[in-house]
Amino acid sequence: MSKKLGILYGISVGTGDPELITVKGLRLLQKVSIVAFPAGINNKPGIAQQIIAPWLKVEQITLSLSFPYVQDEQELQQAWLKAAMEILPHLQQGQDVAFACEGDISFYSTFTYLAQTILDYDPQIKIETVPGICSPMAATSVLGIPLTKGSDRLVIVPALYHIEHLDQIFKNADVVVLLKVSSVYDQVWQILQQFQLLQRSWVVERATQRDQKIYNDLSDRPQLQLSYFSLLIVKVS
Amino acid sequence: MSKKLGILYGISVGTGDPELITVKGLRLLQKVSIVAFPAGINNKPGIAQQIIAPWLKVEQITLSLSFPYVQDEQELQQAWLKAAMEILPHLQQGQDVAFACEGDISFYSTFTYLAQTILDYDPQIKIETVPGICSPMAATSVLGIPLTKGSDRLVIVPALYHIEHLDQIFKNADVVVLLKVSSVYDQVWQILQQFQLLQRSWVVERATQRDQKIYNDLSDRPQLQLSYFSLLIVKVS
Repeated sequence: MSKKLGILYGISVGTGDPELITVKGLRLLQKVSIVAFPAGINNKPGIAQQIIAPWLKVEQITLSLSFPYVQDEQELQQAWLKAAMEILPHLQQGQDVAFACEGDISFYSTFTYLAQTILDYDPQIKIETVPGICSPMAATSVLGIPLTKGSDRLVIVPALYHIEHLDQIFKNADVVVLLKVSSVYDQVWQILQQFQLLQRSWVVERATQRDQKIYNDLSDRPQLQLSYFSLLIVKVS
Repeated sequence: MSKKLGILYGISVGTGDPELITVKGLRLLQKVSIVAFPAGINNKPGIAQQIIAPWLKVEQITLSLSFPYVQDEQELQQAWLKAAMEILPHLQQGQDVAFACEGDISFYSTFTYLAQTILDYDPQIKIETVPGICSPMAATSVLGIPLTKGSDRLVIVPALYHIEHLDQIFKNADVVVLLKVSSVYDQVWQILQQFQLLQRSWVVERATQRDQKIYNDLSDRPQLQLSYFSLLIVKVS
């Protein structure tokens, strides 16, 4: 007789405001006995953890999983493996596990790698994901502007990987969203200046979180000290 | 003494599954006395209307607003004006109005034009938007694949406007989402074949709706009869 396996739910919990979780995400989050999330840094709670805190019940078990903010492939794989091994035994014992993911779970998310690692070890595990609010939509909502309309071409890139190609990107898009812009902001500013796009650019830091910051015109801001979760929106045309 | 004006809430209600509305969107939707939404075609209820149907209360007044599916600018402007004039008197009488929008309200949404038309007539009106689940995220969730990871360049375009530039788009992206693909699907298929991308492409029709359809490999599908709300995802690299 085969044992019943638990389901791994990948639940997008949105960008910061706890009310931006979906009704479905909230229902599943509160249904499971075990809730996992990415650990915060410097002993602070992580963003997903902060978002779901008001919704959790005291009897739910929480698993705080470490994912380093590095680009080293080997170090990342070790972290995914370690996290997978913390979740897998619960699933194999038939317990459902929810993984809470900030933003949307299909959009540049650690969950993609974690889920694949779990499936590599046990292909029988069933995984279900719940989509959520991603940062470009949250940012435009708090800015009070549309992200795209009509025939707009929208390009979204993590800025730090594509800094060399930004001029090409600006030439082929109507709207550009640069994620993870903090570490390359100075360079991005120079390129925006060349293209005369500084007045058509917005930076949103921690959209919908309590300490959200908005910069509406970048003309006088060649430098900004930004946190990791900062994005830049450019209305090219 | 100035009269208190109502607030216009632009509420993203997601892609089809009523549970994919956010907790915030649902709270505001149920708080207002007047709920507006785009009318359906052929006397059928519209998508946003179907999504919110289970959440509405009997005492709420509904406004079904007509927005034609045309590209004629004058005809569109007349529709926005007519819709604005149905909503504005309620706001000016101090009543809050919720406009329910399928997908995300900042993402190629009719609400953008409606809100602007209302503001043109009465700049005092306060508008608040609630972000929501947009179709690319809903589609990848039902497909069980990530939309983007790592350093991916994501390009999103409404296919029918950009059919001539698709080869250029495929050359400069890792992931491409083609919205509104139905009317140009045959031509898109030919280009995908040239680029040998047919096996790396997915079509999702009415993601998360009851009559959702998924096409996983387009190699043997040079033609597909698709509805308006169909999108195509290409994993270029």
